[in-house]
Amino acid sequence: MCRSPLRFDGTMSTSERRQAWRFEAGSPLREADDDLAAEEPLEIRVRGRSIAITMRTPDHDDELAAGFLLTEGIIGASGDVVRIEPCASGEFDNVVNVTLAPQVTVDFERLTRHVFTSSSCGLCGKATIEAVRTQFGPVVSDAVVTGATMIELPAKLRAAQPTFDRTGGLHAAAVFDVNGNMVVSREDIGRHNAVDKVLGYGLMHGLLPFDRHVLLVSGRVSFEIVLKALAGRVPIVAAISAASSLAAQFAAESDQTLVGFLRDGRMTIYANPRRIDAGLTG
Amino acid sequence: MCRSPLRFDGTMSTSERRQAWRFEAGSPLREADDDLAAEEPLEIRVRGRSIAITMRTPDHDDELAAGFLLTEGIIGASGDVVRIEPCASGEFDNVVNVTLAPQVTVDFERLTRHVFTSSSCGLCGKATIEAVRTQFGPVVSDAVVTGATMIELPAKLRAAQPTFDRTGGLHAAAVFDVNGNMVVSREDIGRHNAVDKVLGYGLMHGLLPFDRHVLLVSGRVSFEIVLKALAGRVPIVAAISAASSLAAQFAAESDQTLVGFLRDGRMTIYANPRRIDAGLTG
Repeated sequence: MCRSPLRFDGTMSTSERRQAWRFEAGSPLREADDDLAAEEPLEIRVRGRSIAITMRTPDHDDELAAGFLLTEGIIGASGDVVRIEPCASGEFDNVVNVTLAPQVTVDFERLTRHVFTSSSCGLCGKATIEAVRTQFGPVVSDAVVTGATMIELPAKLRAAQPTFDRTGGLHAAAVFDVNGNMVVSREDIGRHNAVDKVLGYGLMHGLLPFDRHVLLVSGRVSFEIVLKALAGRVPIVAAISAASSLAAQFAAESDQTLVGFLRDGRMTIYANPRRIDAGLTG
Repeated sequence: MCRSPLRFDGTMSTSERRQAWRFEAGSPLREADDDLAAEEPLEIRVRGRSIAITMRTPDHDDELAAGFLLTEGIIGASGDVVRIEPCASGEFDNVVNVTLAPQVTVDFERLTRHVFTSSSCGLCGKATIEAVRTQFGPVVSDAVVTGATMIELPAKLRAAQPTFDRTGGLHAAAVFDVNGNMVVSREDIGRHNAVDKVLGYGLMHGLLPFDRHVLLVSGRVSFEIVLKALAGRVPIVAAISAASSLAAQFAAESDQTLVGFLRDGRMTIYANPRRIDAGLTG
């Protein structure tokens, strides 16, 4: 039952203006409206069943749903999806229905069993981590990026964060080719959602695998970000801020290159440095 | 079956040294080991049943489990918990078993049903949000903090982040009294976990409700952080960085004061400013 379709065209409201008060030492509180990053629940339904509810910034919900199903290992190509329909039903304002091709099998029990945490990760337990790695297999890519190209990426990402400019409150993720050209960038209140959106964009536009590409995230990189990149076959994962121990370990074992602290003309490489060319040969 | 108990005394390894390579423009890659924030799965079991698996930084796992159960509405006082035992079992290295007092009722189906997302929030759907607010009720507190006290808090939090100093990769949360004295601070790779830990500390030490206190988080504040604070009855929630739209809306409706961008001697108040005293009266 779908009515009042949400829009998928990038025109949904990614921020909300609210009443606010500013304090500065020595002055009385001063009322001044402020723009806040929009945060709303989205329910993803597959074949009529609810498989996930996530807090996200509205916009590109179709890509979010597609990327989520990709990184959960349910779908692998655009042909696996017949239709993604936004709808507003009674109980939830924000629901997307995903219609999969008949040949796609969905293990609903596994989907709703392993993603049942309240914190920043859905896929956990070392046995589960191993199962995931086995499902996707390591990346296979001889892509190489020069250090000079890499250090230009943060400014390109920053230039593609219009809602962050207004709110200071959104994560961003972007995919670049090995020459540093941006393929797609997306913002979201949740860092995992921003990554799902760029991968979902790739899937819906027939651009996968992203096996000669760099995924850049605006903040820190945890295990789950590297895992999502693996689902998109991304060989190089980079973050403006820190990487976690498990992100580095997972990247090393799945033959992904992991870069942290990519800023101010520098970076630290935590796994498989062979894909970063310092540019000093010859 | 518990063997090889993990430690709960603050001596677990919160970071991990790994091989790394540094890049700086004009120089070859230089090998230099680096400390990364530790990220490992933790399974929380109640009465023998697995209720959550979360990616966390090892340390204070007992507080994390207690805080998680508090903010899920399962327990409300230290007497509700008989024992929290760390153990390493076969499949998972990191498991805590929580033994609850007999009178505590646990709705396992609700617990594992509503926390089934892969992103940054477990509690979603507007109907669920309303149910949660009703369960906890609004905070009741006439606490007031001066702006001068508030703007000193970030430096105090920063001084209590030893692992961040090594890794640049951990979130932090702290509880302060209205005079700006720190009650407890904790670090974690997940911002929700850091909040669960400080609230779990309060529960285990008989300090709840934190109804004349400030909760400060190192990053952004989403809806779920404000909700967790509500479970601990915290009237003032502050963040170094931005607040989301739903965080502000939820705080307004639960009578909590919400502060964002608390840094550089300034802050923005998004809800219930009456608890922030600019200090200019008289």
